[in-house]
Amino acid sequence: MKKIAVLLSGCGVYDGTEIQEAVSVLIALDELGAEAVCVAPNVPQHHVIDHLTGDEMPASRNVLEESARIARGAVTDLAEVSAESLDGLIIPGGFGAAKNLSTWAFDGPEASVLPSVAALIQAMVAAGKPVAALCVAPVVVAKALAESGPAVSMTLGSTEDSSPYEIEGFHAGVASLGAKPVNCLLGDIVVDTEHNVITSPCYMMEATPARILAGVRKACAALLDLTS
Amino acid sequence: MKKIAVLLSGCGVYDGTEIQEAVSVLIALDELGAEAVCVAPNVPQHHVIDHLTGDEMPASRNVLEESARIARGAVTDLAEVSAESLDGLIIPGGFGAAKNLSTWAFDGPEASVLPSVAALIQAMVAAGKPVAALCVAPVVVAKALAESGPAVSMTLGSTEDSSPYEIEGFHAGVASLGAKPVNCLLGDIVVDTEHNVITSPCYMMEATPARILAGVRKACAALLDLTS
Repeated sequence: MKKIAVLLSGCGVYDGTEIQEAVSVLIALDELGAEAVCVAPNVPQHHVIDHLTGDEMPASRNVLEESARIARGAVTDLAEVSAESLDGLIIPGGFGAAKNLSTWAFDGPEASVLPSVAALIQAMVAAGKPVAALCVAPVVVAKALAESGPAVSMTLGSTEDSSPYEIEGFHAGVASLGAKPVNCLLGDIVVDTEHNVITSPCYMMEATPARILAGVRKACAALLDLTS
Repeated sequence: MKKIAVLLSGCGVYDGTEIQEAVSVLIALDELGAEAVCVAPNVPQHHVIDHLTGDEMPASRNVLEESARIARGAVTDLAEVSAESLDGLIIPGGFGAAKNLSTWAFDGPEASVLPSVAALIQAMVAAGKPVAALCVAPVVVAKALAESGPAVSMTLGSTEDSSPYEIEGFHAGVASLGAKPVNCLLGDIVVDTEHNVITSPCYMMEATPARILAGVRKACAALLDLTS
């Protein structure tokens, strides 16, 4: 059974992991007969957002504890996980990728990435093990790999269909770090077969839950195909 | 397009809605071409559980605000929803059904049900509109209907397969309120065609994310079949 780490960043699209994307990953990996190993960093969230109003709340929450909600408790501290024990890695989206795993939401391409997150991505890519990043999570991969050099093809979505976000700006951002941005529609995936990196837009584009699952299934199937 | 209310009770299996069941409902309704209208009561959670340790945390959270995490913000206050505007109702599981929508987790068959929740269930059943309840949520339906009389066939799972819970006790509990408990395995559903109530065990039994989606799909298809 292939062991795939699912890197979570909290629980809720505006301050953590996008829940529907994360659950779709768990469903798809299970359908494909792979073992999902949910992992998350044991750090405070950048902030807590009231998902009803979009306003910041005067509260503090922990990324590992909140991620455990999606995983029904079965989440491992990222500090205890190494690339050697894994066959692949997938990072669902949500602002948590850009606020907790990295500071991209505030600093763009000047962002820092949590050292444990950067180290895992770098080790997986160096070992030729596949890494999938959904929605906004490719920015974390782009930044983690910016110094080690590989020019990875990746997508944050498409400028040719409806999106709530500035896809062009995201693509320019990852390009400034050496990545090669590619337009990709909802439900489709971009596979960089040289570096074994898979990306898919998910909720970077206008989407619905069933269409999210359909795209995530493709990404997970491609990820497993690239495991050795 | 059929309008189906999805009644949420927070965000996380141990103090709110079971996230994987709720997302499976959103996926299945979308696949079936129905409109999901997420609703939740605007009340404090009974308590907040650290999903990593299972311990209670010194915090307070609001059911409507936390439910909004699953729905990406698109959740309506239950007080603003009436049976007239809906074609059906589905209640995912998670301890939130037994802690926030009702007090079953503490009081068993002596539980109280939030008046707004009881009123919606009673109005739907009185109008012949279908109600589906997943996992532990059938206890809320049993209690809400206990005084109005209909003996509804329902399941909390099966005593003939692995469960982390005492299925026999749950079945005895709803039977004491006039419901007719029926054994049902994971992935299967019980349909009371006289009262248009659909139930399915989901995570009351040992399960995995893909098997949850498969069972939820059956429940949602039966729900839509029973809409007029």
